[in-house]
Amino acid sequence: MNPEMPLKPGAVIGILGGGQLGRMLALAAARLGLRCHIYAPKGDNPAFEVAHQVTEAAYEDGVALAAFARSVAVATYEFENIPVDAARAVAGLVPLAPGAKVLEVTQDRVKEKSFVRDCGLGVPGFLPVASAEELDHALESVGRPAVLKSRRMGYDGKGQAVIGSGDDSGQAFRSIGAVAAIVEAFVPFAAEISVIAARGRDGSFAAYDIPQNRHRDGILRSSVVPAPIQPATAEAAKTMAMRLMAELDYVGVMATEMFLVDDRGRDLLLVNEIAPRVHNSGHWTIDACTVSQFEQHIRAIAGWPLGNPIRHSDAVMENLIGEEIERWPALATEPGLALHLYGKSETRRGRKMGHLTRLMPSN
Amino acid sequence: MNPEMPLKPGAVIGILGGGQLGRMLALAAARLGLRCHIYAPKGDNPAFEVAHQVTEAAYEDGVALAAFARSVAVATYEFENIPVDAARAVAGLVPLAPGAKVLEVTQDRVKEKSFVRDCGLGVPGFLPVASAEELDHALESVGRPAVLKSRRMGYDGKGQAVIGSGDDSGQAFRSIGAVAAIVEAFVPFAAEISVIAARGRDGSFAAYDIPQNRHRDGILRSSVVPAPIQPATAEAAKTMAMRLMAELDYVGVMATEMFLVDDRGRDLLLVNEIAPRVHNSGHWTIDACTVSQFEQHIRAIAGWPLGNPIRHSDAVMENLIGEEIERWPALATEPGLALHLYGKSETRRGRKMGHLTRLMPSN
Repeated sequence: MNPEMPLKPGAVIGILGGGQLGRMLALAAARLGLRCHIYAPKGDNPAFEVAHQVTEAAYEDGVALAAFARSVAVATYEFENIPVDAARAVAGLVPLAPGAKVLEVTQDRVKEKSFVRDCGLGVPGFLPVASAEELDHALESVGRPAVLKSRRMGYDGKGQAVIGSGDDSGQAFRSIGAVAAIVEAFVPFAAEISVIAARGRDGSFAAYDIPQNRHRDGILRSSVVPAPIQPATAEAAKTMAMRLMAELDYVGVMATEMFLVDDRGRDLLLVNEIAPRVHNSGHWTIDACTVSQFEQHIRAIAGWPLGNPIRHSDAVMENLIGEEIERWPALATEPGLALHLYGKSETRRGRKMGHLTRLMPSN
Repeated sequence: MNPEMPLKPGAVIGILGGGQLGRMLALAAARLGLRCHIYAPKGDNPAFEVAHQVTEAAYEDGVALAAFARSVAVATYEFENIPVDAARAVAGLVPLAPGAKVLEVTQDRVKEKSFVRDCGLGVPGFLPVASAEELDHALESVGRPAVLKSRRMGYDGKGQAVIGSGDDSGQAFRSIGAVAAIVEAFVPFAAEISVIAARGRDGSFAAYDIPQNRHRDGILRSSVVPAPIQPATAEAAKTMAMRLMAELDYVGVMATEMFLVDDRGRDLLLVNEIAPRVHNSGHWTIDACTVSQFEQHIRAIAGWPLGNPIRHSDAVMENLIGEEIERWPALATEPGLALHLYGKSETRRGRKMGHLTRLMPSN
């Protein structure tokens, strides 16, 4: 791909990862006349259903990765735990956006938080810990309650433990598998918000209106847009995301999850997590915006102009997790509700099976 | 399929026809977690790109049709010129919606107009003609100007000729291929409108707000919703469509194109054409409604409850025909514009390559 020239309709985009995010990316690409080639290991890959071409192979299969890369004009990923080596192998043959370096930073919570802090942005107090002894020592400076998280491979609350005042830190360390970890100060937040923003190949930037997010058991339950926050705070959050994306030389859509803290009457924003991809808290953009986060990501990596992130309606997005998908017959009758089911063949506890968006007139 | 039970997510829907309508139906089905199997003859079939399964075979291939029918839970068609025999072969093995009988009525303009008239609804004056002599005779009662159309296989203005006061009727007859035809009184309409409506398996009915349509060279150029017509006229148009769909025992989305005529100061509605499928003049529903006409059709044939045809924005849809697709780079920069490209590999004069929808706040 010539970075100066946008991909033409008919061109093929490669996506590493076959989950619901890849599926919704492929649906968005199809709307623009672009084709998708999905690469994912054996398993339940709902993105395969709607793709022009698929490769079912391991991320360690260099031959398959090379064939995949040669068949596409540009590649991307839908999941931040793609092995960096696989991303590098693809990036050696075809433009990869976002780049492999972004994966390196975001796959390790210590690297990620250090990067954010080095950008001059606020983060909760944190320390790396590699043993129960280090954890005990770290808790003395971080304080209790604290949150212990594995450094790597964490998502949807997996590999996390809260350590309260009376909790046994050694047990907490074992509960996350006694792996290299990070311990973070527990943040008594007023709200959780996220910035869903895109950066184009030309450095252009576009952020959607900011949703307020609610989690349960570490899994996103709902996002409400617009978040009930001060306009100046929303602008500050967008500026923080823009800073991070510029530093990463980012191309595509990125989500920055933040804690909004009441700092003696003033709004303080702390970055909780970066997701180098389209994000669950941006799913409402499919129904409430002219250009969804999925189309926006495709536009960015294809070298197209970014879409205007204009929102025509207020929205509430709710996830359908595990058995909740069985609610679909009743949900399908509700006026103003958009239903999205991911076509996963197996319903499992804690698994994201679909989502719904309720639209309301914008004020 | 048990007509009492809705299809469950994961079920497979069969679609006869592989054009852009099939493509957009497949994209809508995917959003609901339903899979599509597309059946179409060899050619440029953009629906193949986004389908779970495809069969490339002739509509006369009974073996392929039977295998297709056995692989799906319910079947539909995206094009009214599917041979009735193919539809019947499928309908013998699996529920087909709308039914094969609807195809029979709508494939022949004389049958179609007679059916509408027999339902007690207004149609332009018409007569069947099978020869230049019959045409001359018919013109005496229908009057001039008149429109000569082939009885069968007409769409997008193909097989049509206008006969003005000085025109040679014999030449007009030869220009449409000297085939069995219908001659219709030319209607000096105030506006062209269409009713995009759905009927469920349970007889439920839901119509979208009515667009005003503009054609050029027999091809739809644009649809504007809401049409600037009286509310009572809009209601009358919807009631007419409901009547036709009930008489046809219709299941799915149907478009009824109508002429709005100023009859000495009163609104008169004449039915111009029935399309037994999702329709170009309903494409704006993808962007301006919570449930698009494509999802609505899938819901109806899957036995799901119909979606509320609620509209959150005003909209203008414009087709991108032939070389107009080359406008995409500029269109992609326009705020509030949703771009839809069909992924057709060959650009031909008069070919629908994509469309755009401009959204405006609803009043």
